[in-house]
Amino acid sequence: MSDVKKVVLAYSGGLDTSVIVRWLQDTYQCEVVTFTADLGQGEEVEPARSKAQALGVKEIYIEDLREEFVRDFVFPMFRANTIYEGEYLLGTSIARPLIAKRLIEIANETGADAISHGATGKGNDQVRFELGAYALKPGVKVIAPWREWDLTSRETLMKYCEERNIPVDFSNKKKKSPYSMDANLLHISYEGGILEDPWAEAEEDMWRWSINPEAAPDQPTYLELTYEKGDIVAIDGERMSPATVLETLNKIGGANGIGRLDIVENRFVGMKSRGCYETPGGTIMLKAHRAIESLTLDREAAHLKDELMPRYAKVIYNGFWWSEERKMLQEMIDYSQRHVNGDVRLKLYKGSVSVVGRRSPDSLFDESIATFEDDAGSYDQKDAEGFIKLNALRMRIAASKGRKF
Amino acid sequence: MSDVKKVVLAYSGGLDTSVIVRWLQDTYQCEVVTFTADLGQGEEVEPARSKAQALGVKEIYIEDLREEFVRDFVFPMFRANTIYEGEYLLGTSIARPLIAKRLIEIANETGADAISHGATGKGNDQVRFELGAYALKPGVKVIAPWREWDLTSRETLMKYCEERNIPVDFSNKKKKSPYSMDANLLHISYEGGILEDPWAEAEEDMWRWSINPEAAPDQPTYLELTYEKGDIVAIDGERMSPATVLETLNKIGGANGIGRLDIVENRFVGMKSRGCYETPGGTIMLKAHRAIESLTLDREAAHLKDELMPRYAKVIYNGFWWSEERKMLQEMIDYSQRHVNGDVRLKLYKGSVSVVGRRSPDSLFDESIATFEDDAGSYDQKDAEGFIKLNALRMRIAASKGRKF
Amino acid sequence: MSDVKKVVLAYSGGLDTSVIVRWLQDTYQCEVVTFTADLGQGEEVEPARSKAQALGVKEIYIEDLREEFVRDFVFPMFRANTIYEGEYLLGTSIARPLIAKRLIEIANETGADAISHGATGKGNDQVRFELGAYALKPGVKVIAPWREWDLTSRETLMKYCEERNIPVDFSNKKKKSPYSMDANLLHISYEGGILEDPWAEAEEDMWRWSINPEAAPDQPTYLELTYEKGDIVAIDGERMSPATVLETLNKIGGANGIGRLDIVENRFVGMKSRGCYETPGGTIMLKAHRAIESLTLDREAAHLKDELMPRYAKVIYNGFWWSEERKMLQEMIDYSQRHVNGDVRLKLYKGSVSVVGRRSPDSLFDESIATFEDDAGSYDQKDAEGFIKLNALRMRIAASKGRKF
Amino acid sequence: MSDVKKVVLAYSGGLDTSVIVRWLQDTYQCEVVTFTADLGQGEEVEPARSKAQALGVKEIYIEDLREEFVRDFVFPMFRANTIYEGEYLLGTSIARPLIAKRLIEIANETGADAISHGATGKGNDQVRFELGAYALKPGVKVIAPWREWDLTSRETLMKYCEERNIPVDFSNKKKKSPYSMDANLLHISYEGGILEDPWAEAEEDMWRWSINPEAAPDQPTYLELTYEKGDIVAIDGERMSPATVLETLNKIGGANGIGRLDIVENRFVGMKSRGCYETPGGTIMLKAHRAIESLTLDREAAHLKDELMPRYAKVIYNGFWWSEERKMLQEMIDYSQRHVNGDVRLKLYKGSVSVVGRRSPDSLFDESIATFEDDAGSYDQKDAEGFIKLNALRMRIAASKGRKF
Repeated sequence: MSDVKKVVLAYSGGLDTSVIVRWLQDTYQCEVVTFTADLGQGEEVEPARSKAQALGVKEIYIEDLREEFVRDFVFPMFRANTIYEGEYLLGTSIARPLIAKRLIEIANETGADAISHGATGKGNDQVRFELGAYALKPGVKVIAPWREWDLTSRETLMKYCEERNIPVDFSNKKKKSPYSMDANLLHISYEGGILEDPWAEAEEDMWRWSINPEAAPDQPTYLELTYEKGDIVAIDGERMSPATVLETLNKIGGANGIGRLDIVENRFVGMKSRGCYETPGGTIMLKAHRAIESLTLDREAAHLKDELMPRYAKVIYNGFWWSEERKMLQEMIDYSQRHVNGDVRLKLYKGSVSVVGRRSPDSLFDESIATFEDDAGSYDQKDAEGFIKLNALRMRIAASKGRKF
Repeated sequence: MSDVKKVVLAYSGGLDTSVIVRWLQDTYQCEVVTFTADLGQGEEVEPARSKAQALGVKEIYIEDLREEFVRDFVFPMFRANTIYEGEYLLGTSIARPLIAKRLIEIANETGADAISHGATGKGNDQVRFELGAYALKPGVKVIAPWREWDLTSRETLMKYCEERNIPVDFSNKKKKSPYSMDANLLHISYEGGILEDPWAEAEEDMWRWSINPEAAPDQPTYLELTYEKGDIVAIDGERMSPATVLETLNKIGGANGIGRLDIVENRFVGMKSRGCYETPGGTIMLKAHRAIESLTLDREAAHLKDELMPRYAKVIYNGFWWSEERKMLQEMIDYSQRHVNGDVRLKLYKGSVSVVGRRSPDSLFDESIATFEDDAGSYDQKDAEGFIKLNALRMRIAASKGRKF
Repeated sequence: MSDVKKVVLAYSGGLDTSVIVRWLQDTYQCEVVTFTADLGQGEEVEPARSKAQALGVKEIYIEDLREEFVRDFVFPMFRANTIYEGEYLLGTSIARPLIAKRLIEIANETGADAISHGATGKGNDQVRFELGAYALKPGVKVIAPWREWDLTSRETLMKYCEERNIPVDFSNKKKKSPYSMDANLLHISYEGGILEDPWAEAEEDMWRWSINPEAAPDQPTYLELTYEKGDIVAIDGERMSPATVLETLNKIGGANGIGRLDIVENRFVGMKSRGCYETPGGTIMLKAHRAIESLTLDREAAHLKDELMPRYAKVIYNGFWWSEERKMLQEMIDYSQRHVNGDVRLKLYKGSVSVVGRRSPDSLFDESIATFEDDAGSYDQKDAEGFIKLNALRMRIAASKGRKF
Repeated sequence: MSDVKKVVLAYSGGLDTSVIVRWLQDTYQCEVVTFTADLGQGEEVEPARSKAQALGVKEIYIEDLREEFVRDFVFPMFRANTIYEGEYLLGTSIARPLIAKRLIEIANETGADAISHGATGKGNDQVRFELGAYALKPGVKVIAPWREWDLTSRETLMKYCEERNIPVDFSNKKKKSPYSMDANLLHISYEGGILEDPWAEAEEDMWRWSINPEAAPDQPTYLELTYEKGDIVAIDGERMSPATVLETLNKIGGANGIGRLDIVENRFVGMKSRGCYETPGGTIMLKAHRAIESLTLDREAAHLKDELMPRYAKVIYNGFWWSEERKMLQEMIDYSQRHVNGDVRLKLYKGSVSVVGRRSPDSLFDESIATFEDDAGSYDQKDAEGFIKLNALRMRIAASKGRKF
């Protein structure tokens, strides 16, 4: 194990990753570089500096990646109307490739030969971190303490901290939560605790980002989103950056009780798990993006996207962001968005988002053809007869040859 | 045109199809058989008898098809979590194949050589009726008056009625609606009128089946659905027939403002159109079915279904219910449902449906493995290392050969 | 019918399209512009000039499109390993979009408001021509004489020619063929005649482009093809243009009896038809392209391409080359080819093509890992255990819960 | 390691698995049950009995599984026209699930708690054996000696044999081959040796099952295959069992030099490997099955099968035969075959198979419609106009709104 000289750790500043710093130093006798990113999780990242320093870390990276996160990861994913297993908006999945990328870039900058993270051996996140790392730096050594060490209970962990004078902040509110949580600008997730019984309803005080729909305003909120090439560039006419878009939608959505989700999902490692998610802004974006596409995308383009979406979602969920297949799909998706411009008007009310209008300079909606009124010859209804007859021909032949259902 | 002897007409009893009866008699000098079905549209069908008689029709079929509709069409479709273009629950599409089937069966019983319907030449319904008819009776003659006649404006139609003494019921409430509507047990749809402007918000008084979410009860409603082989067999513990299930869910859903939808969709005939839909029960069923599957379906089975769903939806939307490809997909889907048993607990509140619990005797959720607590060896975290390494291998090789993103 | 002023006709110079020139002049009282393209069909195109002049045509376009055809249509299609229904290399289908494009460009140049072609109302080619034309010039008028006129038998056609002094060349060899044929640089096709009985074997003297395998050389021919970004750029080390590549492969392939095919296919218009094809160069290209991809494409990229290929083939077969969905697929396919470089060595022998070697500077084949000998630690066999265990986990859980096959 | 009491070993009787018997006895101190199957590999299986006895094995299973292999595994797979990566007929992959099934059944019969096999840690076969085993008996212990032991070179292996008096048969012809081989009724495969260089041509004396095409008969061989529900039931009019069908086709195909293949494939474990295969009968069956389907399958049924085939092939290649997704796909495929009846006439000649005729009582080929001659009104060419116009509508609208390519 002595072949590691320097390791870059995805460091939150919390107890677990602080223990990992010390454990890496002890176990591998190596230098630890910490990397802490602000992805919009809603917690200060700067305090991680002093904690890392206290642990003897010399190279400390603390970065605000919110814009890059939304611009290069969240937005591209939403261009595909991506949902995993019909429900999940991939809030955790989409943050991992960015962290993996920065871990590797920092490893290259600092001459580190390994990376490390605090994800357990049962989850998807270990896979996402490590697939990204291997794809970007094939010779990197990955250290996953939770798969290696024997600190598998709270007691052994505490004992380890005490023996090594690792400060444990018992007042930390998050630590007292019975749930395992993860947050970034796209969502916050909850697992564990009573959620391990799929029949048990989540407790109201678990939810942190959205108000209970029952306590949301009695009046609906209207919202207008402006799209350019499939991405939101303005809210209610005000242009803003990608991260600001998402922050704003989170705030408005959360205030209207939007984006709560309670599901059982299938992990890549083979088990089912139950999770609860709050994705206020993402829930709004999905609905609105479909609406602007409904007006501006060709039918078969839309259907092709729809048929490939579950696969694209799976690629991301399973951690293959930095893969050739994801890039190929992305090329197709991005190409399809070049006319996805226009405005969507939404109504938010106590937990639900409704589209109430959409318009576009690139609209393919042709009122003169679609109308129930006189269309002045734009469409010849007699064309339909031949259309139907030839579409029916194979079935007519089959039936006339005696084929039955 | 004299080669038609007898034609079976899908007859609603309304003005348009009444005109068609007379027009068929006049134009083809043929006998007309009327067929009126109760599919749960919420209007009496029996009055169609006297109207048909008044028009000189001798063979009159009036049938309650609600159970067959839900059991053999709606339920099979919901086993696939079917949605067209990410939003539409196919309420109109799924009723057409049953009507086509009965039209043909009645044609066979009465010795008719033709069928007719009141759908226009711009829509999907003509396609659905006629593809079904041709698939089931390849030599049948199809008469689509809207594509043939010159009664293309309200005035010419009225004049035609006056000249022929066709009674026009000006007091009919539905006729005064500015919208083109279609209803059955699964949904009611609205098209035309101000909806032809996709930016215009639908007027509140358009909606007929659901209460405005803002006027819905301030307290959530909880509901428990029981599934057997993918179909709902009981609500809150009370077993009921398929049609009763859907009626019940429509009532509860509508009372909670659930199932309104406003979209622009792509028709099979090539144009975009804007439609509003109310599908209270269907909206609940979709959410609940995904929940019971999340617990009982194998991951790859679920993903296979998800990837094929858009195609299955398109097959139905385009009118190919009575096709070999629909049957093949159905075989696969139905097979997948043999363990989809159990209960789903839902919360309905002012327009939204949330899953709050799910349980099953056939659950594949393994708490002992999924737990964040000690799993007593059910899962060896070390397995994850090899799993990740081999999943990464192709990417590592590519990267080591210099491939870049 | 008098609203057409000028029409551009896809003119072969043969009897049928010569009749069409006159028929268009007579029926529409319009000017006819002829367009004759050399797509490598193996017949002189220049003679079409005097024939058109004799018919009074003033604007005559005769063009050599062979390079454009192979570079912009054939090669892009082969990047996808495209085969329709498991057998057909789309030789006819891929030429139509180019003809449609030139028809429309010429219409724009000459101020024509219509285009015309000599394809019948039963086949795929009318669809391909017209979909292309409509996609590129939505207001164009399309005249398809075979669907309009009453010259439906050989006799009426001859009579029409006699009455109008249209010169009929009875010595024309092609006319005496009992088959309907189409040829371009990619293939020659045969339909009709005894082929209308799918049980009847094609006669040996039908085949024109390839020698009977039984008469082919007794010694195999070896060949080396060089690829850059998925396209062949050199044969046996000699760089050549796209059309020259295909011409060369046709010659070598034909001499070795390669590329004959006898199939029943499903037309877009709904019927099955039987066709025989000779595609010597294309057959070699398909085999070789798969070989160079096998070495240079990532596994999942290759599988994604394979899963989408049938759809891409169908898009082209059905005539949707100039559609958004084809372009989207092409974006993905082309992107995947950026490392598809290297050489393939082939053996041709009496009708079959075998790959005997492939090499690439961008090879992803890693001998040090793949070897059966000692791999010096490149691959840790123990990783396989975890890989298998987690891949098996969902099935183990299902089986432990009593699920059976 | 002492927790294994009895292990069932897939035993070939060869050196490697003989060593494994002894190694299992030594290492696990357990009883070994041997299982040797005749899958048509072309070697006597009975000699395995005395070899096993000599190693002290008490429970010895020797079985002829050829009929089950072809009937329940090979034939179902060929119903889907299954090919992996465009080339490979899955000869090895399809045998593994049957062996896994028998290993588990024998474990259940003999009260064994473990199974073992001789596949290495680099290949696909370990995955296929083990996924099958885990799916059928989730609690089984799997022992894969090649991943555990240190006998990784020929020398250490030989030394181990000498020390333990394991008889090594130096006269064994197969052992002297420089290639790693696997054979069953569907194919024989070669890997390793000079094949590890993908540019090196396979030596002629490597091939064992087929004659060199250059040495094959100078006269073609004609063959007639009869299908029932997608499976071959007779050759040249003579009904025979599934295994006899395949044996017969192997003999005829091999004599005509048919079925050689040389590819680079992507293994599930992440690496590329080069393999050569001889699949004489399978190559014929694939071609013939497509031909009978071309006459009897509905177009969209055929296309649906084609689009899903690569996924089905991948499922089998990766070892997921005993999975829910394979069963779902199989349900769909098998359903589609209920009318796949009839005869296919083939011509075999020096390495190639050509279809020269096909006929069926369930043919969907309609000569009266397909004909180039007068069709007496079976098909109205005018229908094509409306068909094309509505298929073009979305593209016309897009173009008229200014969309460009």
